[in-house]
Amino acid sequence: MNFLACFLFQGLSQSQLERITAIIAEHHIKAGDWLFHEGKPADSLYLLKDGEIELVTRVKNGLEIPVTIIRPDNGCLGIGTLVEPHLYSLSARCLNDSVVLRIEQSQLQRLMQDDIEMRCTIMTNLARKMLERLKETRQEVKIHFMNLVRSVSF
Amino acid sequence: MNFLACFLFQGLSQSQLERITAIIAEHHIKAGDWLFHEGKPADSLYLLKDGEIELVTRVKNGLEIPVTIIRPDNGCLGIGTLVEPHLYSLSARCLNDSVVLRIEQSQLQRLMQDDIEMRCTIMTNLARKMLERLKETRQEVKIHFMNLVRSVSF
Repeated sequence: MNFLACFLFQGLSQSQLERITAIIAEHHIKAGDWLFHEGKPADSLYLLKDGEIELVTRVKNGLEIPVTIIRPDNGCLGIGTLVEPHLYSLSARCLNDSVVLRIEQSQLQRLMQDDIEMRCTIMTNLARKMLERLKETRQEVKIHFMNLVRSVSF
Repeated sequence: MNFLACFLFQGLSQSQLERITAIIAEHHIKAGDWLFHEGKPADSLYLLKDGEIELVTRVKNGLEIPVTIIRPDNGCLGIGTLVEPHLYSLSARCLNDSVVLRIEQSQLQRLMQDDIEMRCTIMTNLARKMLERLKETRQEVKIHFMNLVRSVSF
């Protein structure tokens, strides 16, 4: 199954993955529809089964900055579900008609409360991925900084 | 003790904190000295007891971008110690003569292997903090983006 490829679930046992499979619900989303909005309560984690979903953030004047595009092979959406204050940190919009696997926060929380090893593995995977993304985002800041230096020099 | 204020250790029990205290070693570092360098193996986590330490990242041509300044009340250094690939993601230089509390990666790893609840709490704290820092860094990207839009508009 696709969702096994999600970085969050790497290292989980077969039985742990089966318990997660049992709380998954499949939803169909149309191109152009929003899956969730930045700053809103993160009540669900989503795995992409089919389609393409764009993560964006808004700046002033309604301008949008694209952050990344999620495809079925590269992960999940809504990791704000897993950590306090449980808010979505970006907005997600379907680029093409998509199929998502929804995991409700309350149900996942229950599984992780009953199985500390599962919680520990998921949280370690999450921390590692967040550090990677932080490095990538700092890289973007560096590029902007270098452009600024260049524009001041000429 | 100062180190109790470190975000990583929030929520640990008294006995867990005592086990961490037992593996801490105090070191004195002079102003201008480097504590660690970006990209090098992260073999130690540091808590700042006294002084000021600057975290920086290098861009091309030897230029440095300051990322943040760590003070005794606001955290720890070297979180790359806690997640694979166990590399420092920034460089740390003492701004003033400083006193750091060093925790060796191998010793902390052993404590966390023996106590899955400790590991789970530390990793959850780390994931939450990384997500916060990611949001802050994205905020910087937004500011650069807006400056760019402004410079193109005029």
